[in-house]
Amino acid sequence: MRVLCTLTLSVFSVICSSLKVKASNPPNIIIMLMDDMGWGDLGVFGQPSKETPNLDAMAAQGMLLPNFYTANPLCSPSRAALLTGRLPVRNGFYTTNGHARNAYTPQEIVGGISKDEILLPQLLKKRGYISKIVGKWHLGHRPQYLPLRNGFDQWFGAPNCHFGPYNSSVRPNIPVYNNTEMVGRYYEEFKINKKTGESNLTQIYLQEAFDFILEQHASQQPFFLYWAPDATHAPVYASKSFLGQSQRGRYGDAVMELDDSIGRILSLLRSLHIENDTFVFFTSDNGAAVMSGPNESGSNGPFLCGKETTFEGGMREPAIVWWPGHIKEGSVSYELASVMDLYPTSLALAGISPPDDRTLDGLDLTPVLLWGRQLDKLMPIFFYRGNELMAVRLGQYKAHYWTWSNSWEEFKAGINFCPGQEVPGVTTHNQTEHTMQPLIFHLGRDPGEKFPLSVLSNEYQDALGRISSVVEQHQKSLVPAAPQLNMCDLAVMNWAPEGCEKLGKCLKAPKSEPWKCDWPH
Amino acid sequence: MRVLCTLTLSVFSVICSSLKVKASNPPNIIIMLMDDMGWGDLGVFGQPSKETPNLDAMAAQGMLLPNFYTANPLCSPSRAALLTGRLPVRNGFYTTNGHARNAYTPQEIVGGISKDEILLPQLLKKRGYISKIVGKWHLGHRPQYLPLRNGFDQWFGAPNCHFGPYNSSVRPNIPVYNNTEMVGRYYEEFKINKKTGESNLTQIYLQEAFDFILEQHASQQPFFLYWAPDATHAPVYASKSFLGQSQRGRYGDAVMELDDSIGRILSLLRSLHIENDTFVFFTSDNGAAVMSGPNESGSNGPFLCGKETTFEGGMREPAIVWWPGHIKEGSVSYELASVMDLYPTSLALAGISPPDDRTLDGLDLTPVLLWGRQLDKLMPIFFYRGNELMAVRLGQYKAHYWTWSNSWEEFKAGINFCPGQEVPGVTTHNQTEHTMQPLIFHLGRDPGEKFPLSVLSNEYQDALGRISSVVEQHQKSLVPAAPQLNMCDLAVMNWAPEGCEKLGKCLKAPKSEPWKCDWPH
Repeated sequence: MRVLCTLTLSVFSVICSSLKVKASNPPNIIIMLMDDMGWGDLGVFGQPSKETPNLDAMAAQGMLLPNFYTANPLCSPSRAALLTGRLPVRNGFYTTNGHARNAYTPQEIVGGISKDEILLPQLLKKRGYISKIVGKWHLGHRPQYLPLRNGFDQWFGAPNCHFGPYNSSVRPNIPVYNNTEMVGRYYEEFKINKKTGESNLTQIYLQEAFDFILEQHASQQPFFLYWAPDATHAPVYASKSFLGQSQRGRYGDAVMELDDSIGRILSLLRSLHIENDTFVFFTSDNGAAVMSGPNESGSNGPFLCGKETTFEGGMREPAIVWWPGHIKEGSVSYELASVMDLYPTSLALAGISPPDDRTLDGLDLTPVLLWGRQLDKLMPIFFYRGNELMAVRLGQYKAHYWTWSNSWEEFKAGINFCPGQEVPGVTTHNQTEHTMQPLIFHLGRDPGEKFPLSVLSNEYQDALGRISSVVEQHQKSLVPAAPQLNMCDLAVMNWAPEGCEKLGKCLKAPKSEPWKCDWPH
Repeated sequence: MRVLCTLTLSVFSVICSSLKVKASNPPNIIIMLMDDMGWGDLGVFGQPSKETPNLDAMAAQGMLLPNFYTANPLCSPSRAALLTGRLPVRNGFYTTNGHARNAYTPQEIVGGISKDEILLPQLLKKRGYISKIVGKWHLGHRPQYLPLRNGFDQWFGAPNCHFGPYNSSVRPNIPVYNNTEMVGRYYEEFKINKKTGESNLTQIYLQEAFDFILEQHASQQPFFLYWAPDATHAPVYASKSFLGQSQRGRYGDAVMELDDSIGRILSLLRSLHIENDTFVFFTSDNGAAVMSGPNESGSNGPFLCGKETTFEGGMREPAIVWWPGHIKEGSVSYELASVMDLYPTSLALAGISPPDDRTLDGLDLTPVLLWGRQLDKLMPIFFYRGNELMAVRLGQYKAHYWTWSNSWEEFKAGINFCPGQEVPGVTTHNQTEHTMQPLIFHLGRDPGEKFPLSVLSNEYQDALGRISSVVEQHQKSLVPAAPQLNMCDLAVMNWAPEGCEKLGKCLKAPKSEPWKCDWPH
């Protein structure tokens, strides 16, 4: 229908336009992915400073998913999982350089998203979707890994984290791209004042979202907007008008600006009368980075530890779905769900069959979201570090096969992944194996993972039996992809991104000397 | 006006009734006080199991107070403070038997609420209020201390906690009173099945509230209902139809039944068309009793420790105010407020002057609640154990002069007031003095009290200066009352409460042998 429309002349456009509203045309899809924002950072999830009126209203107008998870407690693998619908161990976004190590894509990483993966926007194209990513990519920064080579039609943002500023002779600052060409670098054209925390990047990302939505609306194209701002990732930043506005410092200021931006995006959809045609999903890439201390990190609410760990604080995410007229206002679903479900769910909304040549780890959530149903079977949530299955949740039970917060060396140096929390035998500083007798928690009664069930109890034995069979099935059929995050090389850093010549911002790369990346946790 | 009405004959009653709605007649007042329910136990305050739809709706229709405190981390002193508007150290509900010890009213306690105190219902009588307490009293169980001798017109409930069952020859079970006479005892006429957790007590307390509201409505009397159910205090209980309904076991079942009851009470007010004439305040007596483990205790959300401690988990309380037509729907006030404010606030609503012969620790919150104003000055919150000022909050800053979770002896015996939490130098197992250099936290950035400010920072020095002057002023003018909770005696237990003869349930008291009560924490 949409293809037909684009072929017709203007005389038919009114008809097509009215059909679009009435008929089963696929909805626009917006995924809003926050960076290091914790489950407990939203008012509706219990943040005492209650500084997210727009997100709280979004929940009141849509559905809250309190049992929603990421696929990995770190940014790059989590984002790769979202866009492929597959666990990092299946899509290659992991390392085998050490046992149970988290890995991501710093600018010395050689690898990136494998050409064998099919990303969500590649499939959405089949139904005429135009796709844009705004903000952080993080699936590899070398040319072949960038968004426009992997299904997106447009991009405004950066390939890596906004760490810096760097001395260009040693390490380049991270480039900001507009589609295929860099338009500047962080700390150079795109300022972040690390002393004051001031940066207008969220406003730029908001404007990019606005422009894209308006443009697609005008052209009657269904769109996929992947809105991935990074203001809540250290170094945390906010625009001048938001700095000092929250009760919890710079981090809260960043949250307030993001909340405000989300409110504006939803308002725009209403103003354009496309709120009934636009499915919006809000979540975050991993738990709050509590190791960064109170000034630069958020809250994981009642959960244990945070980012980098496979405790609930590392992987339970805030999640809200909003689609007026389709999703029941103020509803709550307790279904276990994950960021990987967004792939098959988006395909289902678009009326596209998922690829049949590979295992997807996500499930189509439309029955849950649209009709408030429960899924037919209990879906497990798998918690990995590297290619090690650390823990599994099934129903209310979570079994830990390995526990590790971070190493004694790091801990003694003041790096603490669980500040203020210590559960003996659980928040271990050695990698501790429990595969013969996993620690099992009932997350309903004990969301903070503080009280392991007694191994002698019937409840333990019963839960273990059910989880074991799920794990056995999972591991029997698992074919790990080649790990993409093993090799590093200073030569691959962002020295001379496409477009640098026009700007006179090309830097000279050093000689290639690859090494096995060191992943300390 | 009301007195006039009661004197007129029925021919005038319609006029009086219509005047009541229009004019400045004082509103009915309902205070709903939960027992050991934590800040994090409500959906609106972040409980992951989201099992309080009625309380969440109450917040959406009223005002949320995320910075609301009790006056003591333990039940009896907290309840005495609510009804007197005064800190326990001022109203006598404390002990001097040991340094910085929490004390309450077990049935061997000799003392109770002092006759020198003026309780809220005594003053409300001046404007014709009829007052009823439903549920737990806890201000002393000897005859002179009971509710009907202290301003209440009606009572259905018990004087002490529902511990038991006891062997009557050693220790009597706790009596349940209807007004001045006992009508049975817990575990005898009023069943609590400790194995299954079943008890219909909340339903009885709901019915008592209903009957009272209907009766006062029919007689056009303004009323004060102090609804104090105790289902969330260990041993936790729920009615059969709620058992097994929550995701978090028996404790969650109890919460669901209380939430359901609260929904029914608010619905009754609407059905009677008196929702605009009835001020309703919901809160809890102290933090969740996290030392009781996951089956018998609730959640303090992101806060440190729980009941018995002067960390936030012990004293920050869930709080919602509801008064349709008077309080702005879905509003939030960040004002620091406490359970002691309910006394002057209720008096202000009733148009009664507070007593001028004594210090009140509460403030009239009507400007905050009704007009969304901020109070003129920053009100401090004082955190006591016994007569020791452990900590003070002023604005976002909280200074700890003493820290103590519980003793090493208890801790080694498996009693843990901060399970899963450990903040070095803060959650101390020795009473640790910091009076020369208090630990100071910024509760906005760090609600979990994990990161003390550096004493070298300007922020620390500035906060300390302001807090010190507030503390100096407080201590200079403080006149402690005689402590009521020092003496114990088996002879004073509930052997033969009034009404026992009729029921044939009098027990023989042992000889009086008073001793200084032992308060271990």
